[in-house]
Amino acid sequence: MTSAAPSSTPRPLYLRIADNVTQQVSSGALRAGDRVPSLRQLGRQMRVSMTTALQAYLWLESRGYLESRPRSGFYVRTPFAKLIPEPQFRPRKTRPTEIDTDAVLSDIIEEASDPANIPFGLGSASPELFPSRKLNLILRRIVREHPDHSARYDFGSESLRRQIARRSLATGRALSPRDVTITSGALEAINLTLRAVASPGDVIAVESPTFFGILGTAASLKMKVIEIPTHPQEGMDLNALEEAIRRHRVKACIAMANCHNPLGYVLPDRAKKALVELGARYEVIIIEDDVYGDLDFSGSRPRTLKSFDRTESVILCSSFSKTLSPGYRVGWVAAGRFRDAVARLKFLTTVATPSLSQLVVAEFLESGGYDRHLKRLQLMFAQQAELVRKAIANHFPEGTRISRPAGGHLLWVELPARVNALKLYRAALDKHISILPGMLFSATGRFEHHIRINCGANFSPAHERALSTLGRLCERST
Amino acid sequence: MTSAAPSSTPRPLYLRIADNVTQQVSSGALRAGDRVPSLRQLGRQMRVSMTTALQAYLWLESRGYLESRPRSGFYVRTPFAKLIPEPQFRPRKTRPTEIDTDAVLSDIIEEASDPANIPFGLGSASPELFPSRKLNLILRRIVREHPDHSARYDFGSESLRRQIARRSLATGRALSPRDVTITSGALEAINLTLRAVASPGDVIAVESPTFFGILGTAASLKMKVIEIPTHPQEGMDLNALEEAIRRHRVKACIAMANCHNPLGYVLPDRAKKALVELGARYEVIIIEDDVYGDLDFSGSRPRTLKSFDRTESVILCSSFSKTLSPGYRVGWVAAGRFRDAVARLKFLTTVATPSLSQLVVAEFLESGGYDRHLKRLQLMFAQQAELVRKAIANHFPEGTRISRPAGGHLLWVELPARVNALKLYRAALDKHISILPGMLFSATGRFEHHIRINCGANFSPAHERALSTLGRLCERST
Repeated sequence: MTSAAPSSTPRPLYLRIADNVTQQVSSGALRAGDRVPSLRQLGRQMRVSMTTALQAYLWLESRGYLESRPRSGFYVRTPFAKLIPEPQFRPRKTRPTEIDTDAVLSDIIEEASDPANIPFGLGSASPELFPSRKLNLILRRIVREHPDHSARYDFGSESLRRQIARRSLATGRALSPRDVTITSGALEAINLTLRAVASPGDVIAVESPTFFGILGTAASLKMKVIEIPTHPQEGMDLNALEEAIRRHRVKACIAMANCHNPLGYVLPDRAKKALVELGARYEVIIIEDDVYGDLDFSGSRPRTLKSFDRTESVILCSSFSKTLSPGYRVGWVAAGRFRDAVARLKFLTTVATPSLSQLVVAEFLESGGYDRHLKRLQLMFAQQAELVRKAIANHFPEGTRISRPAGGHLLWVELPARVNALKLYRAALDKHISILPGMLFSATGRFEHHIRINCGANFSPAHERALSTLGRLCERST
Repeated sequence: MTSAAPSSTPRPLYLRIADNVTQQVSSGALRAGDRVPSLRQLGRQMRVSMTTALQAYLWLESRGYLESRPRSGFYVRTPFAKLIPEPQFRPRKTRPTEIDTDAVLSDIIEEASDPANIPFGLGSASPELFPSRKLNLILRRIVREHPDHSARYDFGSESLRRQIARRSLATGRALSPRDVTITSGALEAINLTLRAVASPGDVIAVESPTFFGILGTAASLKMKVIEIPTHPQEGMDLNALEEAIRRHRVKACIAMANCHNPLGYVLPDRAKKALVELGARYEVIIIEDDVYGDLDFSGSRPRTLKSFDRTESVILCSSFSKTLSPGYRVGWVAAGRFRDAVARLKFLTTVATPSLSQLVVAEFLESGGYDRHLKRLQLMFAQQAELVRKAIANHFPEGTRISRPAGGHLLWVELPARVNALKLYRAALDKHISILPGMLFSATGRFEHHIRINCGANFSPAHERALSTLGRLCERST
């Protein structure tokens, strides 16, 4: 992953420590079942704090190299092949079929805000993981200093656009504040971009599986989608994408290269580069959804597709909804030559994004608080993912496969083929457990035996019980 | 206007006082040029406070019955016919023509937030007229009491929907909280509704002139609009609408019956009823934009089109952007049988409207502060409108006609035919005065010599100077 980070971002200390350990494993110096040095020993050996040593071990645990045993320490894990298997890649010709996900979507909207449910469903982390206290302090001060914050239109606060531009360096492509248009979340950014670059009836290429919001927004704009088979680690099958482009005059392609929703991968740089070059060759606009990009577990900021763009054909959409708070609804788009068109569409749809939330986010970014918060969040999500993966492996039927995310807080779970995920979704809701059925992630009814699990919450006995219940329900949902 | 109010709203005291005065004018007891009783005398005669007496006189002034003379009192005005003429109704066959308003819209987006400009352009009142202090107090308390306000999705706060439902009584049609879906402003409500009820290529009937956001949002969804000639007081020509429906399979009709933007009228009840019945007869959905409906100068809440709806074919869209603060971006829609479809589209576009702003608005409504605030705003806007009308009449060329709004804070100004409003718009911007050219309010390039003037600001010498400059620029913009 090191090569993915632009040279401006030094690799964090704890990762360099972790590298030493993985090298010892690959060289055979450490073998499966061996106990690794205690935190105190490691700290002394490498001249780092015990916190850094712990960070390194937790990261290694999250990636499956180490396992912790209660009151005993960290051990090298059994070889990778014996670990929880990941979902399989099964390329399949896309048959355009009619599928109605409206009822499920309406369900989700009704149920999502029900606090009685164990929330494995929606794609937001748990409220207690967000820096609400700090954001509220900033918010209250801004309200004191700018009493008429709400009485002004703001088509994008200067200070927020400047902060976003400053952070863009770490993604491999420097943006200027003028490049950035503020939106009400990343999904609005994608919606506006689709309307700017394509028309009803146009064909949009999407990953398969992909975030259901992308499928829904394209469908609501009466655009056709063609699903490109997508490998759980390598991303879209570029041969299939090229064939689709040749056969269907594809207008745009929506891609999530970093911490994919739902697959969890961060694409290797060569795959990012190849995708962008393919888009450029056929003059297909690539709409990049980078909304989980700040949540890479490695601690380095992965490069965006935009950073490989030489022809102004990648439009970058992102937001702070996954890292700061979903309720702020502050997103943005760097729309390049479509900048004015996107700004007009924004003005004609939601007019403006509330100024207050923009000012709060800008100040949190400027204070450095955002970076410190991200580090905590990355570590936390890496641990949560591992805990939830283990629990699923324990409780679910033989044959279940679970993604191993490189970032974010979403797991893609492939159940045995006999399980009907839609039935499971409904049975789970009856038990006040919300999950998402795989069919939502396809426009052609694929992923009938897949579910998405949000692991962005402090893992508790209630979560463990809910996963155990889900595992039992699998057998009844066939 | 009394008949427009449902029986549950008693006519305010000051209007009943004002009625007495207008009766005396119509009976001839008071004639043009007569001085009316002083505030003290009137208060004593009618047994009301001097404040109520002043309210009555200011309202009479705003409607053109009285004029105030400095240090002398209020006088009955010269007969109506000699007053400032209102814009004319010139029905014209709609020729579909291509017109590109993109450049002007992009200008507006760039210039609108420039505080250096005298803001006669955008449709929001001046920040100092909004209850920022009170809203901020509520906001700060909510942040204290609900520290994680921003970490939750909210598809419409229960408390806000309850408050909106309670207020609906006064509009002649009781809604239940469940009928209401919260949106990010009324324009999003209209956008979502259009997507729910119509498809690209479908024909939408609109008033002419109409709010440019409606034209823009329909165009961006690749829907066709047909402009229905619209009378400055009586609204859409229903014969023309019926003909359009018969000839073009119109899918929906967007109408603003209360405090029309830009014409300023409140439709008489019989016109509202006739429009709704026409829609029902042809199964055309009527999308009602009621965003200025709370700003009727008469102090009674005018009825909505929705209140005449017997067939669930009126969808009511509104917001608090014109009355509380544009930056809150809290709107709503009562979408009837399209409720679920609209909620899904909302979820697939901006996901949710921030909870914090919803809670603030809900509490301000519940406290009764909103009603008190509205009363002040209505009176203020009525006065402002009259002041700006006078100043325009003084400074603009002979032949200028100005609307006499029944509510809101927008004036529609018809300039002599030789004036090119687009040139005037550009020349004004050079002098840091923002206005809107009439062409924005038509999809077919009509209203070349009309402009819209926002008079929702405390009238100051700077505004007077700006109007004087505009008047001079008219002669050079031919």
